[in-house]
Amino acid sequence: MADKIKVALNGYGTIGKRVADAVMRQDDMTLVGIAKTKPDYEAYVASHKGYPIYAVDPAKAGPKFKAAGIEIAGSNLDMIKKADIVVDCAPEGIGEENKKIYEQLGKPAIFQGGEEHEVAGTSFNAAANYGEAIGKKFVRVVSCNTTGLCRLIYAIDKAFGVQKARVVLVRRGGDPNDAKRGPLNGIVPDPIQLPSHHGPDVQTVLPHINIETAAMKVPTTLMHMHFVNMSLKKRPSREEVLDVLRQWPRLWLIPSWYNIKFTGDAIEFGRELGRSRNDIMENAIWEESVTVDKEGEFNAFQAIHQESDVIPENIDCIRAMTGIEKDGMKSMAKTNKALGIGNFNPWKLAPP
Amino acid sequence: MADKIKVALNGYGTIGKRVADAVMRQDDMTLVGIAKTKPDYEAYVASHKGYPIYAVDPAKAGPKFKAAGIEIAGSNLDMIKKADIVVDCAPEGIGEENKKIYEQLGKPAIFQGGEEHEVAGTSFNAAANYGEAIGKKFVRVVSCNTTGLCRLIYAIDKAFGVQKARVVLVRRGGDPNDAKRGPLNGIVPDPIQLPSHHGPDVQTVLPHINIETAAMKVPTTLMHMHFVNMSLKKRPSREEVLDVLRQWPRLWLIPSWYNIKFTGDAIEFGRELGRSRNDIMENAIWEESVTVDKEGEFNAFQAIHQESDVIPENIDCIRAMTGIEKDGMKSMAKTNKALGIGNFNPWKLAPP
Repeated sequence: MADKIKVALNGYGTIGKRVADAVMRQDDMTLVGIAKTKPDYEAYVASHKGYPIYAVDPAKAGPKFKAAGIEIAGSNLDMIKKADIVVDCAPEGIGEENKKIYEQLGKPAIFQGGEEHEVAGTSFNAAANYGEAIGKKFVRVVSCNTTGLCRLIYAIDKAFGVQKARVVLVRRGGDPNDAKRGPLNGIVPDPIQLPSHHGPDVQTVLPHINIETAAMKVPTTLMHMHFVNMSLKKRPSREEVLDVLRQWPRLWLIPSWYNIKFTGDAIEFGRELGRSRNDIMENAIWEESVTVDKEGEFNAFQAIHQESDVIPENIDCIRAMTGIEKDGMKSMAKTNKALGIGNFNPWKLAPP
Repeated sequence: MADKIKVALNGYGTIGKRVADAVMRQDDMTLVGIAKTKPDYEAYVASHKGYPIYAVDPAKAGPKFKAAGIEIAGSNLDMIKKADIVVDCAPEGIGEENKKIYEQLGKPAIFQGGEEHEVAGTSFNAAANYGEAIGKKFVRVVSCNTTGLCRLIYAIDKAFGVQKARVVLVRRGGDPNDAKRGPLNGIVPDPIQLPSHHGPDVQTVLPHINIETAAMKVPTTLMHMHFVNMSLKKRPSREEVLDVLRQWPRLWLIPSWYNIKFTGDAIEFGRELGRSRNDIMENAIWEESVTVDKEGEFNAFQAIHQESDVIPENIDCIRAMTGIEKDGMKSMAKTNKALGIGNFNPWKLAPP
């Protein structure tokens, strides 16, 4: 094997901290370090994990890190210079500003779904378009919802052809550690004017898919929920549909006897499994809800863990962009194994 | 005009108390009284409104009412004997038991949507099938969600023909005065197995409508939200669709400049209007969300106030069953006027 890919994490919030941990679990990657703007409990844990910590603005943040007892390895520019590739996990919109830095330093970079497609020019989902990222300088891993939709729609489209997808997304109002978002009581059609951005966003990865999406926000922190309806070109039986879904480890069919009644149970299952941060990186599709109706339309409920489903996609995107693995299926299998995706045997996954 | 219709309210919870108030606002009806099983704050207010209060089981409840200082006019059986018609607003499933009483006493009765269609044999929505209730002994006013769907689907079907309706319902977990329901955090696909009961329930009123429904419960108390997609037989323009919706006062098109961003705003609007209990009895349809897509499919968001949208339907159902008004459109217009439905001029509706 070639030298390990040196990965720098610019930004260390909800996504960044998970990508850093996931990089550490890959045998073909190393973590150069993580960059943060200020010390906080996440930096505290990162430092105790032994991750090299770089400051985004050391002149300003250096004294704060020092006061917190956290050693700084340098500036985020120092970090980026040492890396083969940067995963940008800065807050929404900041990635676009950071792009100038990556261009100046001649480093390839992955952006997250909070950035516009145009920032990278290529939008990525491992199953759907791995090959398009190979050798690219800038690629965007699409958002949690778009990732969940691409996985499912790609699998069904490949097998049966999707004539039209109609998706209603019920989004969590904020993440568990977000004190500023809402709603606290109520249902927010968001946007009121149709369609939501999710349909066009799916088309940045799967341009040929005819899709309409509507979205709402509700008072929960745990996961998003999608109700997916698709008119198909072929007329498969329900069993044929289930057989297709079973081929994809990132599509998890929840067995009915698990008695996972809602998103709260799905996250509790992640906790029972001993998964890092109780993450459910797979699309959680209720097997019982998978239906082919009398017009041959596919219907299903799937829950999407907004904090973690894009993590394996970031890992695959690193392999594609650096060219260390040109076969998307092989990269996905490697990532899945390293992260325990599709493996619901608790003790194998994470010994207690 | 003939003598006023004497209406008895058997059950005085969320729906019962509103129907009682609504009956009081009609010039062709009088309220015989309301029946409750025990004294509480709702009984306290009812007694101060001067509503005759009857006890469901006076031997057991009488002393409790006496201790509470609330005078009892007799048993619920006494009340029912005095009435021309009973509106049964007992908790879900109790209506079926109560039916025996109504049969014994030879009184026509209206049941609520918590009861099965078979309890009454006729399910009712004023716009959709007023005529079917004329002269009937037992009729069920369908539930809040089904009422909201029947109103919208009937209007669109009448104008353009509905080939297939696909509806995703995001339901409030419990009412504002319900301390026992959930979820507190999470999204519940309910039921997981498709379809939800709402589609078949719409068909009890509109048997020819091809409809599929999926439902979720979320942590809110204020209103339900529907995302309604319909394939149509004709291909109307968006303006033609809006023109149809504008013909029905119970379909309220929310103007975008109102800045009603979510269900919380819709209820706040009810409070600003000075409406009784802030009720929004109309389907609250975001005008901006009404869309005819490139396949000619109708799409829209509508919020449904679970506590109140069935109230005008109960009033119309009384008129249909007693035959005091055989023209559904006339009854609806009369009810709308009496309850201020479709009238969003605050001071005309309820002087401060």
